[in-house]
Amino acid sequence: MSALSSQEPSPKRRIGAEKSETRALIVDVTEQVIREEGYAAASTRRVALRAGLNPSLVHYYFPSTDDLLLAVFERGAAQSDAMIAAALASNEPVRALWQFFRDDSRTALSVEFIALAIRRPAIREQISAHASAMRAQQIALFERVLGERLAQATGCSPAGLSVILAGVGRALFMEAALGVTSGHDEAIQCVEKWLDALIPSP
Amino acid sequence: MSALSSQEPSPKRRIGAEKSETRALIVDVTEQVIREEGYAAASTRRVALRAGLNPSLVHYYFPSTDDLLLAVFERGAAQSDAMIAAALASNEPVRALWQFFRDDSRTALSVEFIALAIRRPAIREQISAHASAMRAQQIALFERVLGERLAQATGCSPAGLSVILAGVGRALFMEAALGVTSGHDEAIQCVEKWLDALIPSP
Repeated sequence: MSALSSQEPSPKRRIGAEKSETRALIVDVTEQVIREEGYAAASTRRVALRAGLNPSLVHYYFPSTDDLLLAVFERGAAQSDAMIAAALASNEPVRALWQFFRDDSRTALSVEFIALAIRRPAIREQISAHASAMRAQQIALFERVLGERLAQATGCSPAGLSVILAGVGRALFMEAALGVTSGHDEAIQCVEKWLDALIPSP
Repeated sequence: MSALSSQEPSPKRRIGAEKSETRALIVDVTEQVIREEGYAAASTRRVALRAGLNPSLVHYYFPSTDDLLLAVFERGAAQSDAMIAAALASNEPVRALWQFFRDDSRTALSVEFIALAIRRPAIREQISAHASAMRAQQIALFERVLGERLAQATGCSPAGLSVILAGVGRALFMEAALGVTSGHDEAIQCVEKWLDALIPSP
């Protein structure tokens, strides 16, 4: 790795060879900075310092701070997509999706990206496009798996259920990150009662 | 206001007189900085610069950045408390509370404070104490107004309903701030159907 901290980017031929490794290191360090200090701390200069790289090398891969932040978002979105795809492919996709919504492993990062998206249009577009695509996929699943039973049992449409499950799941992990858990067990019981009524036990 | 930008805090006697006005100006400007640039930008130095005040005067009122951020949080929390008190005192407290959860006027600020609370313990304690107190108040309301009907109609406890309504309301405004609104109308219809079933029309 010592070549990476040299004053100038390596010659073209070597950059090609090192590209994925250096790029991945930069994205790793940026994610760490966002988690520990917040998105506002994630400048190319700060990331270069923490990664022990020359700022010009970070700039070579990520010309702007938005490029850097987007790379972290895109890697996280790809991880979410893979988790959702696994949930959708499981024997109990609706319950698996609900577990995914309740997952708290990415909380701090998600909140940072929402805060960031509210302020920066370039980031907002990517985040909202990704969120809309995920929602469309979930609505299609609820239509396919729950069908008519959903409206009969709850009075909710597939689209409404999708917003409700995502919202309740997100509330559980955002509040837990703040140390607020009052009512959480009861909300989970309540959602699971609906799901039990909707989905015959296997 | 020109006296406020002098090199040193005014003599004791004058500070007492100007206290609330200067303090309120500092809190206003800090809130503006958080809304426009994020919480990480809200240093006493930056706030002093934007308010046209000497940094030592800002330090006089708010010795640390945490003190400054907490003052903004506390003012916002007092506004929320007043809105909730008005909802609870209305003829239709449950519906009024649901409207409050859906209110989007404080979105950008709430998300900043959640992001901040995840990282800073001093802020987290205040935010979680406030959130827990609000929840306890709402649970008591649901018990009083909905009573037995709630469990019979939905299978949910008052505590569970409180988390669900808050979570869905927050999802609606957080997603709308990102430009994602798919499924929102349906989720609102779904919640309002439950409320119609729970609360006799006036």
